[in-house]
Amino acid sequence: MPSGRRPRSGWTYAASGVDRSSISTALRSLLREVHPRGAPGHGTPVAAPGHYAGLLRIGRTTVAVSTDTVGTKVILAEELGRWEEVGEDLVGVNVNDLAAVGARTAGLVDTILCARPDPGVFAAIGRGLDRGLRAAGCSLLGGETAEVPELVQHVDLGATAVGFFPGGRRPILGRSIRPGDRILGIPSVGPHANGYTLLRRIVRESKADLRRPRKGARRPLGEELLRPTRIYTRAVDAVADLPGVHGLAHISGGGVRNLVRLNGRVAFDLDAWPETPPLFAWLAAAGGLPDEELFQTFNVGVGFVLIVARPAVPEVARRLARAGAPDARVIGHVRRGTGVAVPAHGLRYASYA
Amino acid sequence: MPSGRRPRSGWTYAASGVDRSSISTALRSLLREVHPRGAPGHGTPVAAPGHYAGLLRIGRTTVAVSTDTVGTKVILAEELGRWEEVGEDLVGVNVNDLAAVGARTAGLVDTILCARPDPGVFAAIGRGLDRGLRAAGCSLLGGETAEVPELVQHVDLGATAVGFFPGGRRPILGRSIRPGDRILGIPSVGPHANGYTLLRRIVRESKADLRRPRKGARRPLGEELLRPTRIYTRAVDAVADLPGVHGLAHISGGGVRNLVRLNGRVAFDLDAWPETPPLFAWLAAAGGLPDEELFQTFNVGVGFVLIVARPAVPEVARRLARAGAPDARVIGHVRRGTGVAVPAHGLRYASYA
Repeated sequence: MPSGRRPRSGWTYAASGVDRSSISTALRSLLREVHPRGAPGHGTPVAAPGHYAGLLRIGRTTVAVSTDTVGTKVILAEELGRWEEVGEDLVGVNVNDLAAVGARTAGLVDTILCARPDPGVFAAIGRGLDRGLRAAGCSLLGGETAEVPELVQHVDLGATAVGFFPGGRRPILGRSIRPGDRILGIPSVGPHANGYTLLRRIVRESKADLRRPRKGARRPLGEELLRPTRIYTRAVDAVADLPGVHGLAHISGGGVRNLVRLNGRVAFDLDAWPETPPLFAWLAAAGGLPDEELFQTFNVGVGFVLIVARPAVPEVARRLARAGAPDARVIGHVRRGTGVAVPAHGLRYASYA
Repeated sequence: MPSGRRPRSGWTYAASGVDRSSISTALRSLLREVHPRGAPGHGTPVAAPGHYAGLLRIGRTTVAVSTDTVGTKVILAEELGRWEEVGEDLVGVNVNDLAAVGARTAGLVDTILCARPDPGVFAAIGRGLDRGLRAAGCSLLGGETAEVPELVQHVDLGATAVGFFPGGRRPILGRSIRPGDRILGIPSVGPHANGYTLLRRIVRESKADLRRPRKGARRPLGEELLRPTRIYTRAVDAVADLPGVHGLAHISGGGVRNLVRLNGRVAFDLDAWPETPPLFAWLAAAGGLPDEELFQTFNVGVGFVLIVARPAVPEVARRLARAGAPDARVIGHVRRGTGVAVPAHGLRYASYA
């Protein structure tokens, strides 16, 4: 059970219109009906519990597949008339989930559903998509574009990414995580593409002006909030062959709770979690959000986590620095026990959901 | 240029609210911005012009990836409160595009976006999904489920399928199609999941009762219209290693025009196209639809096409029959020239779009 500080008032994600438990119940009723295993000779699924990417063995090759959408961040893009950022997110939200199993990115297919196709909007999405694909070293393999005004309002952006494990690399699934391991975090650059239903409600109800900087910031709030998901694939690819790398996690929806998904038989003690970045502090203040909700909805400054055997930390840090993540740092360690804790904020979560 | 018979009145797909040219323009402006090729060492895309599946070479393995949604057929599902059929479509619309490059199905990831999650609806989608996965021999690798009432009305169902080429099989891309080849067609079981924006408008404006059979039919019209996409993967997999199989096409959106995409340097003469199935005849009559529009929007009774060297036809037909398609038959042949013609209906299309 979460035991964070509970203020008297404050919004939760459920109150913003998204009920995590009802979507979980619905999903469970779907999965009860599906027998996931294919026919002989059609590839063999590899179990990857706790991960968003699925794994499939085809002959000697194992591929990883991840599918996700940009969610309601597109509504903010529309309000601001800026589409490049969410185009780039389309890549980031998926390839970071591939990185979280240690896969190298290969190809991506996108799905754009819209009420009315606007060539200017599509061109901007294309520019962002291109920037994301370059950052991830990923090819665009195809996509689906549909004008479905009866189905979607605004624009819906989704994609599926495919990755693989080069040169005998094995998937990194978190099973070898053990007490004593160090937890490294790589900073995020904002909320990426998670929690935007709640975030937009906070902006709306606090009457914040998206066109102006919040107090203490230089860029307009809207630009800060649109900043695209940081892409961690190059950095993670540079360390994924090191045997001391025991676990990887993309801190997306669910925040630090994502660590519990990774391995339920150890405790993740985030006793060196960095100071809350000003944008997240502003969100918490403007929304009257308790830390408990903040940390299970947003990444709160850390977008990707690596769990590393203690002796391997210096080499991992060196390689991360050379591959675009010089800002990685130790944010905690693994202990005996279960769950995840952020002691500086008085938080403890026992489970993912 | 299409030269079909043009009646005085009749609806076109554009008039039903979907403007193919505007979505094409928007898509072109997106693709102009994207440099599709990935970084060295991240897999190599293989060109598959005219196909909906994308191909990617990873080491010695080539994977095929297809992404598509069920489109507005879900609105019909909602009106009728029946979700199994569109759950099954979610598999069919994608795996048939994999079959069209000769790939064997392996894994699928789904995306379900909804305004409000209903466990009963999700369970029914799951049952259909399971039936489709079994028919295609495909594993469910994962998926994304989101409650996004601000983005989607109803439910949006999308998926991405991954396939491969077993035992040294090469992709079948249509390049070896030559004059003299025979064109085999495998029947569809209805409109599958294409043309439903137009189809629903016809039903609505003709005031047809979805709960009752149309004249001459046994099942209620709604059930007929919901019937899930026939899955051709087992049949196609049984012939994809035969060198006489020169080309494959899934007849989806775009109808017989899909053949032109396959190879623009030959003419496809569909001089033995089967009689129009009663359901399509009813749609054409109820909507005052010209044949030109009917054949470029719906499959009109043929859901999958194989282009086969004349001497290979008997063996291909035998194998198809053993693998679930005893109803395949010759529906035309390849000639010198360009475009696709259905002489019995006075139709000729020079291009795909």
